[in-house]
Amino acid sequence: MFKVTPWEVEGKIDYEKLIKQFGVRKIDEKLEKKIEKIAGKNYMLERKIFFTHRDLDKIVNDYENRKEIYLYTGRGPSGGTHLGHLLPWFFTKYLQDGFKSKLLFQITDDEKFLFKENLSFEDIGKYTKENMLDIIALGFDPKKTRIIIDTKNIKELYPLAIKIAKKITFSTVKAVFGFNNETNIGRIFFTSMQAAPAFLLSEEKNKKIRCLIPCGIDQDPHFRIARDVAEKLDYPKPALVHCKFLPSLQGEGKMSASQKDNTIYTSDSPEEVKRKIMNAFTGGRATIKEQREKGGEPEKCPVFAYYYFFFEKDNKKLEAIRRECKSGKRICGECKAELIERINSFLKEHQKKREKAKDKVKEFLEQ
Amino acid sequence: MFKVTPWEVEGKIDYEKLIKQFGVRKIDEKLEKKIEKIAGKNYMLERKIFFTHRDLDKIVNDYENRKEIYLYTGRGPSGGTHLGHLLPWFFTKYLQDGFKSKLLFQITDDEKFLFKENLSFEDIGKYTKENMLDIIALGFDPKKTRIIIDTKNIKELYPLAIKIAKKITFSTVKAVFGFNNETNIGRIFFTSMQAAPAFLLSEEKNKKIRCLIPCGIDQDPHFRIARDVAEKLDYPKPALVHCKFLPSLQGEGKMSASQKDNTIYTSDSPEEVKRKIMNAFTGGRATIKEQREKGGEPEKCPVFAYYYFFFEKDNKKLEAIRRECKSGKRICGECKAELIERINSFLKEHQKKREKAKDKVKEFLEQ
Repeated sequence: MFKVTPWEVEGKIDYEKLIKQFGVRKIDEKLEKKIEKIAGKNYMLERKIFFTHRDLDKIVNDYENRKEIYLYTGRGPSGGTHLGHLLPWFFTKYLQDGFKSKLLFQITDDEKFLFKENLSFEDIGKYTKENMLDIIALGFDPKKTRIIIDTKNIKELYPLAIKIAKKITFSTVKAVFGFNNETNIGRIFFTSMQAAPAFLLSEEKNKKIRCLIPCGIDQDPHFRIARDVAEKLDYPKPALVHCKFLPSLQGEGKMSASQKDNTIYTSDSPEEVKRKIMNAFTGGRATIKEQREKGGEPEKCPVFAYYYFFFEKDNKKLEAIRRECKSGKRICGECKAELIERINSFLKEHQKKREKAKDKVKEFLEQ
Repeated sequence: MFKVTPWEVEGKIDYEKLIKQFGVRKIDEKLEKKIEKIAGKNYMLERKIFFTHRDLDKIVNDYENRKEIYLYTGRGPSGGTHLGHLLPWFFTKYLQDGFKSKLLFQITDDEKFLFKENLSFEDIGKYTKENMLDIIALGFDPKKTRIIIDTKNIKELYPLAIKIAKKITFSTVKAVFGFNNETNIGRIFFTSMQAAPAFLLSEEKNKKIRCLIPCGIDQDPHFRIARDVAEKLDYPKPALVHCKFLPSLQGEGKMSASQKDNTIYTSDSPEEVKRKIMNAFTGGRATIKEQREKGGEPEKCPVFAYYYFFFEKDNKKLEAIRRECKSGKRICGECKAELIERINSFLKEHQKKREKAKDKVKEFLEQ
């Protein structure tokens, strides 16, 4: 049993089932090669961390035909940034660099206010600032990247959001998101705000510009609606490319900010990282003796997942880790120690860039 | 049979029934006297054109106790301004002058876009400009009056609107407005935008300031919801004072912009006014002979209603007209001719003020 909605990801996700449920397409080899030709190789593509899409082929065609395209992704500022958030952002940067395209980065502070019962505007404002630093730290091109904060940039978004809202009935959001009579009317309206950036550049330039949305597969329902609306408003349907979730350190479901200890935050200290990784679930055996004999189970292991998703980008080296684990040569303790070192070394650099990002915020907001 | 909702007024309205249906209170003599003591006499109060309220007594108390209060009214820019629109605005000006209070005047351009299937943003923008000139022409104090256009002032309104929206469920708007599964999600959200100005000053000043909303009785449902939300957000409940509708020149229901010929627009030429009034339904008899014998029926007559609501503010003179009509002395033709003259004389002045208003728009928007 698993559940994937834009606001809840639970259980062990069966991605094959999800593909059928959502009606998305796998990225096939031909498409992968075309993207690589434009943007270069990327381990997330190769490993099928980014694994499904809608109309990604059309984006590639547009690019090949020298038509303008743009990227749109986002963040709901309900807490600090964790490593799982960074994956689609890194991939977005890879696409931005490769396709040399504009990027709209939406911060849905309104969403988090409406969907989190106990989160105040003040908290959300604080997380918005924090999250922006992480985004900027990844090195997006400030000349091509515009951060949109819903409540701050509402003047651009709202006229478009109500055009969109006019084309969506309660039936639709009820069916797609499972809303009911007790759902608050802000939540009911919200998907229009999420859809707006998918058409914003077309609207501003009065020209049909297709947009590509890299996002977690859980966000797909919003854009299924947006794609239906696109036709009604005569905009190009937004294309999507979806990623899987970095597993929780407890090994099930998506890394969630509500379980602070199962998650590495970008602001974590080396000690916190150490504690969290040392406490992580693994694919190891009950005793070292048993592990030496039978080998570990990397396919079940969140520590291995961290190498796979993030901390070992070299395929050969990753295979070596897998082999060592399965053969019983690599024991969880040393494997964890190595991961801790890699995470801390990454975070040390990231935290420096995050500090420097403080001076750049304005550039990203003013575009 | 009649129907009164914020978007539809149909049939011959039974105001006594409406009072029970909506659960509003009549303005009693004691309250009327208190208002007169503060703001002076007003024919709309005396004639019970403004006839019901919610918590108007609390506004009076606040004023007497030197607590700040403010006024809030609005306009949905779905067409030109007609005489029926002016009545509550004149009354609002009377209250502003008397209570020396601030006024927020909301232009709900988003509402009209969401509720009128075939109205474009361009049309609505044009009507917004036109309507503002009529508002400003009435002489509101620019130092105390702030015109809020929803899509333009959305940055102030939206954060408050989503606080409000978070407290309203689909059940509520379904029950109050008769929405269903096919209602678009913009309409579902809209009542939060309508409620926002009722709390905006409290929010901005971080202080509990009670607001009084003069409006047509049809707008009451929005504010019933707003009053419920007020408690949940710890704002004072907005007070209301409601007016009846200037009848259509055909004698039934509210003057409606969809029946252009049953309505006098502020931009009408003397010829148009003449044509419309000459074509109006009256309380007259089939023949002049019969009318001389039996007298007319002013209580059924939209021409008389125009005197009553607007063009004869002197009670004694109004009574004289009624008497002359009922006795058969006053015949429809001459009564209409006199009304035409009064309307045209009013419009001539109004249109001049409307021209001058063009230079003042900025003052009202910038506050």
